[in-house]
Amino acid sequence: MTAAGTPLAIVILAAGKGTRMKSDLHKVLHPIAGRPMLEHLLENAAQLSPERQVVVAGHGREQLEAALGARATIALQEPQLGTGHAVLMAREALSGFHGDVLILYGDVPFVRAETMRAMLERLHGVEDPPVVVLGFEPDDPLQYGRIVADGDRISWMVEHKDASEEQRVVRLCNSGLMAVRSHDLFTLLDRVGNDNSQGEYYLTDIVNIASSDNRYCAVVITDDPDEVAGINSREELAQAEARWQLRRRKQAMAEGATLVAPETVWFSWDTQLGRDVTVEPNVVFGPGVSVADGVTLHAFSHLEGATLESGVSVGPYARLRPGTVLRKGARVGNFVEIKKAVLGEGAKANHLTYLGDAEVGANANIGAGTITCNYDGYFKHRTVIGDRAFIGSNSALIAPVRIGADAIVAAGSAVSRDVAEGELRLVRAEQLVKPGWADSFHDAMKRKKADKQQ
Amino acid sequence: MTAAGTPLAIVILAAGKGTRMKSDLHKVLHPIAGRPMLEHLLENAAQLSPERQVVVAGHGREQLEAALGARATIALQEPQLGTGHAVLMAREALSGFHGDVLILYGDVPFVRAETMRAMLERLHGVEDPPVVVLGFEPDDPLQYGRIVADGDRISWMVEHKDASEEQRVVRLCNSGLMAVRSHDLFTLLDRVGNDNSQGEYYLTDIVNIASSDNRYCAVVITDDPDEVAGINSREELAQAEARWQLRRRKQAMAEGATLVAPETVWFSWDTQLGRDVTVEPNVVFGPGVSVADGVTLHAFSHLEGATLESGVSVGPYARLRPGTVLRKGARVGNFVEIKKAVLGEGAKANHLTYLGDAEVGANANIGAGTITCNYDGYFKHRTVIGDRAFIGSNSALIAPVRIGADAIVAAGSAVSRDVAEGELRLVRAEQLVKPGWADSFHDAMKRKKADKQQ
Amino acid sequence: MTAAGTPLAIVILAAGKGTRMKSDLHKVLHPIAGRPMLEHLLENAAQLSPERQVVVAGHGREQLEAALGARATIALQEPQLGTGHAVLMAREALSGFHGDVLILYGDVPFVRAETMRAMLERLHGVEDPPVVVLGFEPDDPLQYGRIVADGDRISWMVEHKDASEEQRVVRLCNSGLMAVRSHDLFTLLDRVGNDNSQGEYYLTDIVNIASSDNRYCAVVITDDPDEVAGINSREELAQAEARWQLRRRKQAMAEGATLVAPETVWFSWDTQLGRDVTVEPNVVFGPGVSVADGVTLHAFSHLEGATLESGVSVGPYARLRPGTVLRKGARVGNFVEIKKAVLGEGAKANHLTYLGDAEVGANANIGAGTITCNYDGYFKHRTVIGDRAFIGSNSALIAPVRIGADAIVAAGSAVSRDVAEGELRLVRAEQLVKPGWADSFHDAMKRKKADKQQ
Repeated sequence: MTAAGTPLAIVILAAGKGTRMKSDLHKVLHPIAGRPMLEHLLENAAQLSPERQVVVAGHGREQLEAALGARATIALQEPQLGTGHAVLMAREALSGFHGDVLILYGDVPFVRAETMRAMLERLHGVEDPPVVVLGFEPDDPLQYGRIVADGDRISWMVEHKDASEEQRVVRLCNSGLMAVRSHDLFTLLDRVGNDNSQGEYYLTDIVNIASSDNRYCAVVITDDPDEVAGINSREELAQAEARWQLRRRKQAMAEGATLVAPETVWFSWDTQLGRDVTVEPNVVFGPGVSVADGVTLHAFSHLEGATLESGVSVGPYARLRPGTVLRKGARVGNFVEIKKAVLGEGAKANHLTYLGDAEVGANANIGAGTITCNYDGYFKHRTVIGDRAFIGSNSALIAPVRIGADAIVAAGSAVSRDVAEGELRLVRAEQLVKPGWADSFHDAMKRKKADKQQ
Repeated sequence: MTAAGTPLAIVILAAGKGTRMKSDLHKVLHPIAGRPMLEHLLENAAQLSPERQVVVAGHGREQLEAALGARATIALQEPQLGTGHAVLMAREALSGFHGDVLILYGDVPFVRAETMRAMLERLHGVEDPPVVVLGFEPDDPLQYGRIVADGDRISWMVEHKDASEEQRVVRLCNSGLMAVRSHDLFTLLDRVGNDNSQGEYYLTDIVNIASSDNRYCAVVITDDPDEVAGINSREELAQAEARWQLRRRKQAMAEGATLVAPETVWFSWDTQLGRDVTVEPNVVFGPGVSVADGVTLHAFSHLEGATLESGVSVGPYARLRPGTVLRKGARVGNFVEIKKAVLGEGAKANHLTYLGDAEVGANANIGAGTITCNYDGYFKHRTVIGDRAFIGSNSALIAPVRIGADAIVAAGSAVSRDVAEGELRLVRAEQLVKPGWADSFHDAMKRKKADKQQ
Repeated sequence: MTAAGTPLAIVILAAGKGTRMKSDLHKVLHPIAGRPMLEHLLENAAQLSPERQVVVAGHGREQLEAALGARATIALQEPQLGTGHAVLMAREALSGFHGDVLILYGDVPFVRAETMRAMLERLHGVEDPPVVVLGFEPDDPLQYGRIVADGDRISWMVEHKDASEEQRVVRLCNSGLMAVRSHDLFTLLDRVGNDNSQGEYYLTDIVNIASSDNRYCAVVITDDPDEVAGINSREELAQAEARWQLRRRKQAMAEGATLVAPETVWFSWDTQLGRDVTVEPNVVFGPGVSVADGVTLHAFSHLEGATLESGVSVGPYARLRPGTVLRKGARVGNFVEIKKAVLGEGAKANHLTYLGDAEVGANANIGAGTITCNYDGYFKHRTVIGDRAFIGSNSALIAPVRIGADAIVAAGSAVSRDVAEGELRLVRAEQLVKPGWADSFHDAMKRKKADKQQ
């Protein structure tokens, strides 16, 4: 529901082939900041609490259905006969709906809610326009359709290829986005023909039809041409990602994080960063990461689904996977992977370690090269390590296994049975000593090597 | 042989000291995209099938000889008395040759074959010019020699330092590249003097000499000034690398790969990427990598000499070295190094592993911390792992060794003898249990630490 | 002492709240290139050998005291009543001082010594000005105070918000930095009032007061506006870091290092690089690194406090920590961490290894997965490995321990006692063979899995 209290429906056009993406994945499902572009658009639109959501699909509709579930009605457009035809396909999904219809594009995902709101407000503003078009003024308007307007009243909309020299001088371009009242939308669309070079039904024509009825169609102009940038190729996808990341990095810095090299930090759509967080060069955030105050993320770290409490230190070369929780002051060092594991306050896993399906007590010390053997080829099992326990280097903890508080596992042990509190567990064969053996081996091998080289 | 059917010889000037590189490596052997710049130039020229290739060398000629082998004749220029003198040194190597001569520069490696071809075609075009010069129009022409031309007829060539104010207004610059008929080349060169401030013989003078004979020398202008950019310093080397990478990244995206952060992906000259390949930030391709459709390369991966079949997943932090083959759907995870090893379909090596000189069967599971001990200090040995075998974590496979299909190696085992199909191999000492030992140790150590601090 | 032989005092203003940093760390202690910005400023000023150094502190003075120690006198400004008031607070610290006073800002750290020197020289130049102001001409002068000057004589200084339209046309801006004779400084400051919109005492006013006395105050203009850029937010911090890194990368290339992707190499303030060093993409230098000629640093390497002799090869994914020394031709490979350890000439540690508190002899070979167990939870112990020793893969060396020259440690050994020269040490349990066990296990597990799924 919009600010004005009128019910809202959104129609998202997503029936295009996306040929230039050269992909088996539907164009609008390609991710930016770790999330399909369609989701970005839906989230922005959700701020306006739409009553109905319709997605017009053609190619790859199964992918859209799987992605959307019950959140939107899919309207099928088959064949694709233009944008006007696409919106017509939403007629059934909108039957019985009375209110405002906002027409969006699945490949124009970053339109802000405030822009959508401005369009809807204009729809209920001066002269009660039947259609409000979102216009923009790009640096180089060459390929876009133009809006010829007088004040905010649209005189004429024209495709670039049909534009006269005079019209091409106009810098105000058509983003394609529109707000239309439901009782006008289909009435106007029914009057749109396909008598043009492409044989298509253009949505744009409803503006010209309404204008020729002498109705006042209005244009709302965005102050940020980037928000209506369409994504039609992998390069445009990368550009949209870059714009998103740039914005997010600035936000992180404004909120009190140090990014030593901001251009090398990649955030996810939902990353949360505290104050006085330091991020060294080259850190990648996947979805689901929350970082509290005073955390240091060293270079070359990769985080997904991880919760980091205050004062934690991570990396360099730390890989935190979903289910990682690092309590206050815990430290995860280089070449360490953590998955579904909690490290207690002040616990350390500093070198060459894999902790999976594990619980590590406060101030426990996990030695270099420790591996939790959590998988037997069929099931996953848990490892529980007590407070202040000391796991010697190069140990294998064969889950399910529990190491008690203050216990010590000797270096190089493969521990398959529980270790009690305060106990030492040592799993090590006798040291077999062969004096001179290595010398003889070296002699023999050098001879062999010499022989081979002859 | 050129399009026109005339035999072609190329002369590559590479006798400069390259002082600004501050390097013991010959300037033209410095790599871009993993390949010496000279090789880039030779590859482009090879598209014109030259009959002879002459490289004029001075300093560091041994390095050039080693790099070129029999592919080109080395002509020695010693001492270096200018570009005209340099080309004269190729006289012997071109003796008996009748056709077109293309004069290139080892430190201008990215001249396109189509540009070379355009020069040669002009040599056989209107007015049959004895010399065709490649001109360019840089944004800032300040330091370059100028070409004063009328239409495409060159009136005069002038070094920048010798140019009048009037001539400096001219924006058409001399790249130094020329196409000359063999019967004109040395005749003209013999007439070049060194009566100038540097006491050098300038190649440029052959144009002025021919012009003063009232012959029509033509200029061909490249539309891409970058292709004639010379590389004289490490900074210019880095700039050339950056331009190459930019081009290659755009190509990868156009062909259907997603590069999340294109500016952080470094390709090699011969990288092959399929469709729907996703490349996360910070991936480095060394030479010899081929990636099939639908592969995901996670962040911080480093690949050389590796073949990846469809659906493979690699990284983050995967290091694939030469001889790696990953069959369909295989997965290589974090902190894993693979060298001269084949992973069968669906096989997994997900954590902290080194596989060298190995063959891993389909759907085998290589546990975290597995090491193939392939080297005895003298020779390399092979490890062969059967289909569906399960290698428990932290195991050492001491090659040569074979693990049968469906076999299981228990975690923490050092396996030095073959394991049969369906067999369990367990190499683990008895678990030695010392209840309370750790508690006593902690007490003793705390006392000792307190003593030391007093 | 300046060139002119006059004693010098510097006064650094650092009492601002730094609110926009949103940090608990004092603004001037935020690091750039691994060193607090205040240290950069002090180092530049040190080239002028100041006799006294005064830092005017307010908020967070304890942090400044801890950082500065005895190197500077802290003058407290509490409350903060403007820049003029701040300098007044230095009166006591400068009592008895006769000479030149240079007024600097803790958040303007990159003013070059040569610029400071130019200001001081002007102070003793034509007309003997009582005050010399450092001016600059930014691309966009909008928010800065303006200097209205006639030649280098200042007519008037005006805050931007108090400037008339006419004055705003002036592009010469006030950096805030000043050189003042000590006998003029406090006399002028005592005359500064706070009758302005902010109720503050502006340092700038001393210029206007002196000018109204008809004294000649001079402006010195920097040719590099970047050097007077103030750092007030994390974004400006990142920009300053970026400018510093850009300059340092160009210097490295000019001195003969190849940076394949310069924009991805981060230097520290004290990094030393030799000639013909190759740095692949994504290398991070922490403080204290020295790299000799001919070293290759592969991608994704991270170095701190490390000394690398000629011909060394490091990475990819190598992490060198303080106390690392790599002798000629040593090699450190992927996923290897070195800390307080010396690797002898030609020694190798190529894969998945942790070497801490260790000494490794020449040409020793440290196998994949080797861990030095240097920590017992309380103390660190040393590992000493002899020349040409061979440490088999996946071994744990439990320090304190010595491995003799030419000795061999068998793969998978946990070595807790010294190994003599030429000796073989093997620590490995018997191989327990259970034919058919794995097959039975697979059958049982498949049944269990099927049961669970029902």
